[in-house]
Amino acid sequence: MNHLFSERVKKAKASEIREILKLTQQPDIISFAGGLPAPELFPIEEMKEVTQKVLDTMGKEALQYSPTEGFDPLRTQIATRMGKQGIKTTKDDILITSGSQQGLDFTGKVFINPEDYVLCESPSYLGAINAFKAYECQFKEIDTDSDGMIMTHLEETIKATPRAKFIYVIPDFQNPSGRTWSLERRKALVDIANRHNLVIIEDNPYGELRFEGTAYPAIKSLDTEERVVYLGTFSKTFSPGLRIGWVCAGKELLSKYITVKQSADLQSSSISQRELAVFLEDYDLDAHVEKIKKVYKHRRDLMMDTMKTHFPESAKYEIPQGGLFAWVVLPESIDSKALMVKAVEKKVAFVPGGSFFPNGGHENTMRVNYSNMPDDKIVEGIIRLGNLLKEEL
Amino acid sequence: MNHLFSERVKKAKASEIREILKLTQQPDIISFAGGLPAPELFPIEEMKEVTQKVLDTMGKEALQYSPTEGFDPLRTQIATRMGKQGIKTTKDDILITSGSQQGLDFTGKVFINPEDYVLCESPSYLGAINAFKAYECQFKEIDTDSDGMIMTHLEETIKATPRAKFIYVIPDFQNPSGRTWSLERRKALVDIANRHNLVIIEDNPYGELRFEGTAYPAIKSLDTEERVVYLGTFSKTFSPGLRIGWVCAGKELLSKYITVKQSADLQSSSISQRELAVFLEDYDLDAHVEKIKKVYKHRRDLMMDTMKTHFPESAKYEIPQGGLFAWVVLPESIDSKALMVKAVEKKVAFVPGGSFFPNGGHENTMRVNYSNMPDDKIVEGIIRLGNLLKEEL
Repeated sequence: MNHLFSERVKKAKASEIREILKLTQQPDIISFAGGLPAPELFPIEEMKEVTQKVLDTMGKEALQYSPTEGFDPLRTQIATRMGKQGIKTTKDDILITSGSQQGLDFTGKVFINPEDYVLCESPSYLGAINAFKAYECQFKEIDTDSDGMIMTHLEETIKATPRAKFIYVIPDFQNPSGRTWSLERRKALVDIANRHNLVIIEDNPYGELRFEGTAYPAIKSLDTEERVVYLGTFSKTFSPGLRIGWVCAGKELLSKYITVKQSADLQSSSISQRELAVFLEDYDLDAHVEKIKKVYKHRRDLMMDTMKTHFPESAKYEIPQGGLFAWVVLPESIDSKALMVKAVEKKVAFVPGGSFFPNGGHENTMRVNYSNMPDDKIVEGIIRLGNLLKEEL
Repeated sequence: MNHLFSERVKKAKASEIREILKLTQQPDIISFAGGLPAPELFPIEEMKEVTQKVLDTMGKEALQYSPTEGFDPLRTQIATRMGKQGIKTTKDDILITSGSQQGLDFTGKVFINPEDYVLCESPSYLGAINAFKAYECQFKEIDTDSDGMIMTHLEETIKATPRAKFIYVIPDFQNPSGRTWSLERRKALVDIANRHNLVIIEDNPYGELRFEGTAYPAIKSLDTEERVVYLGTFSKTFSPGLRIGWVCAGKELLSKYITVKQSADLQSSSISQRELAVFLEDYDLDAHVEKIKKVYKHRRDLMMDTMKTHFPESAKYEIPQGGLFAWVVLPESIDSKALMVKAVEKKVAFVPGGSFFPNGGHENTMRVNYSNMPDDKIVEGIIRLGNLLKEEL
C-alpha cells in the first residue's frame, strides 16, 4: 500500500525520544530521559474542586462544542498573565491549542512549503524538528553560545537562504541545552527579523520556571511589527495531561492559525479549558509555580552536585538557571547512542543528544532531565552514569 | 507578510459553517444550522462521579503525559464496542484522537500529496472537505442515490483518476444527506477498493443513532485486505466537549497515523481518556444512547411532520432513519445562501447546501439539524422557514 502514502509520511520516522521512553517505562529504571513534570506536585485536589464547579455551574457548555478560538475567559486570563510578563496583548490575540506541540504543528502548516527552510538553534527541540519536518522543510542550524544564537551566523545564514520562512527559538531554559538568551540577543533577533522580513517563533514552555537570577523580557514583548508568534502552555506549570496550550500572535498571523485549528480538530477540550479558567480564578497559579520551582531547583542542585563529584572532568556541562534540562557534552570519541544502550543495562536512561540536531552529528552529547526523579534516584542514577562514563573514557 | 505563508494556507478559507454558527449564536435565533447534540442529555452527574474516581484512583497518571496511542483500557473498551458491531479488532488497531475531526486531518496528512484526488460522496461532509483541502488535494464527487454511492460512477471515476488515493464515505445517516448505504453497496465498495488498490475512509459518527429499521454492518467489518480506516467518536453518544474520537485500522495504516499524532499534539487528553474509560466501565453507554435516540427520533418526527404541513410541495426531502440531519432540495431557481440571509432576519438558521459540494454548484439545497432544538422551536422554526420558502417560490 506504500504508493498511497504521502511523501511527508514516507519520509517520517517515529520520534526517537518516544521510542526511548517506551524502553524506559520499566518501573525499576532511573529515567532522566523524558521531560516529565514531577507528578507529586500535580494539583489533584484543586482539579477535583474546579471540575465539580465547572460541571455544576456550566456543565452543558463544558460538554458541548465550543468556539475554535477558545473559551473567552481563559483567553482573557492568559492575556492578563502575559501582560505581567511584559507582553501587551488581549484575548483576541490568543488561540487555545492542544498543548504547545499543536502550536508547533500549526506553525509548520501555516508557513512551510516543501523545500522551504527553517532556521533554528543548534541544538533545538526534537518535537519541533519533527513537527516541521512533517511539512517537508529543510533546516539551517544556527550556532549558539551561552547567550543564545550567534547573530552574525544568523544573518549570514539568512542571506544565503532565500527560502527561509521563520526563525524558531526557545529563549528561556532551552530544550535541550538549558540555556537562556541574553537581552542583547533578544533585541538583535527582532531587529534581524524585521530587516529580513521573517517571522520569529518564540516557544516558551519553561520561562516561568526560573530558579534564580533576573528574567529577561520575552521576545514577543520586544516585537515591533507583529512578526513574533509566541507559543505558551500549561503543561509545565499545571498539568501536561490536560493538553492546553496557546498561540499568541497579531491578527494577520493568528487568523491563519485559527483556520488551521478549525480543520485540524475544530477546538480544544471545552471542559479542560473551563477547568483551567476556574482554577486561575479560584486559586493562585503563581504560588503553585513557586512550589514547583522550589522542588526543581533542589533537584537541579542535587544533580549538578552529584555530577560534579561523579562525572569525569572531560564531561562538560553548564548549570541551567531554570527549566527541566541539563546538557552534557562528552569527548568526541563517545557515541551517546551506544552509551544509552549500556546505560539502560545499568537501569539508567537519558536522551542521546544527536536527536536534537536536525542535520545530524554531535553524537557526543546527552540531555538529562532533573524534574521527574526523587532525590535518591537522582543521586544513584548520576553515580551510575558517572561510573559508566569513566569506564568509557 | 503574505509571501511567508504556505500555499495550503493561502488557498484556505475559514469554514463557512463555523462563520454561520457565529451569526446564529444570538440567543433568540432558532438554529437548525450546527450539528450540536442536545445538551440537556449530557451525562453531567456521571461526569462528576467519574472525574472524582479518576482523580482519586489515578490522579497522577491522569494529569501526566501518556502514550501517543492512547490509554490502553479505553482502547480495549473501544475494540470491544466495535466487536459488538461486527468489527473484529483489538486495542492495537485503535489510536485515540482529539475527536474524529482529527482523524480526518490525519487522513489528509497520511495520504495526500498536492494534486492528488479524493473520491467522495456528492454531497459530503464540509469538515472533511476542509481537512483534506488543507493538503491541497482535488476532489471527484461520486453521484449518490438513497442507497449510497452509485458504483458504476465510482468505478468509471477511479479509472479516469490515476492520482486517486482514497474513497471517503459516511455510510450511516450521512452528513449532510441523512442517507444510509445499502448492504449491497457496502460490499461492492470493498470489492472496488480491493481491485483498484485504494483505501476506504469510513467516517461513522452517527451509526449508533439508528431510530428504526435494521443496522447494516460497518464497511470495516467487510474489510478483507486491511484497507479500511474507520473513524469513530464519542461526540454524538457522550459529549463533543471532551474531544475524544478514534481511528481503527490495521497495523500498516495505523502506524502512519500514530507517527502523525506524535508530531501533531503528542497525545489526546490523559484525563478525558480515563474519564471515558471509567464511564464505560461503571455506566451503561448503550442505555444512554437509547435515551438520546428516543429524543432525536421524536424531534425528527416533529420536524418532518411540520415540514410536511408547512413546506411547499416543491421542496423535496427524504426521512432519515437516524443521525442528526435532514437534507432539503429546493427548485433550482432558489439560491439557499441568499435564502439564509432572509432566514436569519426571521431568526431561523440552516446551512446552505452548496458548502457540501467540494466542486461547487447545488446552491438549491439546505441541511437542517433536528437534534439541538426543543419541540416548540422546531415547530416555530420550520413554520417560519416554510413561509419564507412559499414567499420565494
